[in-house]
Amino acid sequence: MIVEYDGTEYVGWQTQMNGIAVQEVIEHALEKVTGERIILHGSGRTDSGVHARAQVSHFDTDARMSADKFAFALNTMLPNDIRILYSEETNKEFHARFSAKKKEYCYTLQPGPHARVFTSRTALHVHLHPDIDRMNLAASYVLGKHDFAAFMSAGSKLSTTVRTIYRSEWVQENGLIRYYVSGNGFLYNMIRILVGTMLLVGSGRLEPETVKHALSTKNRTDAGDTAPAHGLCLYRVIYDDFDTEKILQRL
Amino acid sequence: MIVEYDGTEYVGWQTQMNGIAVQEVIEHALEKVTGERIILHGSGRTDSGVHARAQVSHFDTDARMSADKFAFALNTMLPNDIRILYSEETNKEFHARFSAKKKEYCYTLQPGPHARVFTSRTALHVHLHPDIDRMNLAASYVLGKHDFAAFMSAGSKLSTTVRTIYRSEWVQENGLIRYYVSGNGFLYNMIRILVGTMLLVGSGRLEPETVKHALSTKNRTDAGDTAPAHGLCLYRVIYDDFDTEKILQRL
Repeated sequence: MIVEYDGTEYVGWQTQMNGIAVQEVIEHALEKVTGERIILHGSGRTDSGVHARAQVSHFDTDARMSADKFAFALNTMLPNDIRILYSEETNKEFHARFSAKKKEYCYTLQPGPHARVFTSRTALHVHLHPDIDRMNLAASYVLGKHDFAAFMSAGSKLSTTVRTIYRSEWVQENGLIRYYVSGNGFLYNMIRILVGTMLLVGSGRLEPETVKHALSTKNRTDAGDTAPAHGLCLYRVIYDDFDTEKILQRL
Repeated sequence: MIVEYDGTEYVGWQTQMNGIAVQEVIEHALEKVTGERIILHGSGRTDSGVHARAQVSHFDTDARMSADKFAFALNTMLPNDIRILYSEETNKEFHARFSAKKKEYCYTLQPGPHARVFTSRTALHVHLHPDIDRMNLAASYVLGKHDFAAFMSAGSKLSTTVRTIYRSEWVQENGLIRYYVSGNGFLYNMIRILVGTMLLVGSGRLEPETVKHALSTKNRTDAGDTAPAHGLCLYRVIYDDFDTEKILQRL
C-alpha cells in the first residue's frame, strides 16, 4: 500500500508507548476490515511530526477481498490525516523495508516575514530568504558514498554509518524552498541534521565546506542543529519493480 | 491589514452566537496589543468553514505603534490558522468593505480515487475528473452584468441581486482544478451555488446552458446544489489604490 499522512498529530509511523502512531491507526482499521490481527510493515520509521506523501507498507492476510479494494475500505474508516492512496497484491518475497532500494525525502522551508497559514503544518518558516547557491554547494558534498556518523543523533546502534546519496539539492517552488534528498538509507535524524547545518550555511553563519569537514571528522559537534520535524516528508520509495512516484502520477 | 486564515475551525469571519469567529480572535489580540476595545471591519463576511488567502480589514486606534509593526505584534498572539500578512496605515476615508472595488474567490477541487491528505481542508474531493471544457462554457455565461437571484440562498434581504462578474474560469493547477471568479460583489452562497451547478455540468448531469437558463428565470430551483464551504477561499481584494495580490507578491 502507498500511505499518505500528515504527521502533526502522531508520534511517528511506528507504534510507541507515548502516543498514537500512524501504524496502529491503520492496523486497527485493518482489523475491522479483515477480522484478523494484522501487523503492518513500513518502508521505514518516520519520527514524531514527520509527514509522508508516499510511505509504503505491506501486510499478510487470509482475507479474500481483492487487493485494490483495501484502499477504499480502509479510507472509509481512517481519519482525514491518513489516506491509503493505492493497494495491490504483491509476491511473498516483497518486504516494504528490506526490499526498498532508494528512498527520497523532501524538507520544505517557507521564507518570508510571517508564517503562512496553509503551509504551517508542513513547512519550516524562516524569516530571511537563505542563500540557495551556498546551500546547494553544501548539499553537493553529501552526494555519493560517505560515512554520515557526524549527521546522526545519539542513541542508535548500527553496524555501519555509511550511506550512499543519489540526489541532494535545494529547489525553489511556488514561493517555497525544498530540499530533495534520496539515498539507499538514512541514519537517525540524518536529514534533519543535514538541513539544520545547511540552514546555517544559507544564512551565512557557516561555510558550505562545513558539511565536507563534518563528513571527514565524523564528529556530531562539527555539524549543525537538528531542524524541526514538521518540515520533513517521506516523498518517494523505489523498489526493483515498484516506484511510488509512477503510481501516484497515474492516480 | 491583509489577513490569511484556515476557516476550518471557525464559524466564519464575522462574530456569531454559535461559535468562534476569525474577527473576534483578532479583536481579542488587538485589545492585548493596544489596550483598546477595537472593532475590526472586514472586506466582507466569509461563511463558516470558508478560508481566506487575502481578507482585508481595517480598524481605528489611538495606539502609537507604527502600522507595519501590528502584523508582527498580532502574529505572536494569534493561533497558527490565522496570520496577519501585512499591515499599513491608511487614510480616514478608507473602509475595508465600502471601498472595495473587486473581490476574487477561488474554489478548489481535488479529483482522484481518494481524498488526499494535504488538501483535505481546502479542496473538495471529487471521485471522477469533471469535464473542464463543459464547466468553462457554463462559467462563461456569468461574465458581465446579470441578475443572480437564482444563485442566492434564501434569507438575505437586498435592494438588488444584480452583480457584475469580471473573471469566471476553471483552471488545472498541479493536479487540482480551480475556479477563479471575480466580481464587484457576491450574493449569499452565490459562488457555492455556481460551483454546485457547474459540478453537475462537469459530470454530465446538467447542460452548460443550465447556468444561462437560471440567470434568465431568476429561480433558485433552476440552479444546482450549494457546494461545500471548505473548497472556497477569498483570494484577492482590489481597491482603487490597493491590491492584495501586489502586496503578497512583494512579501
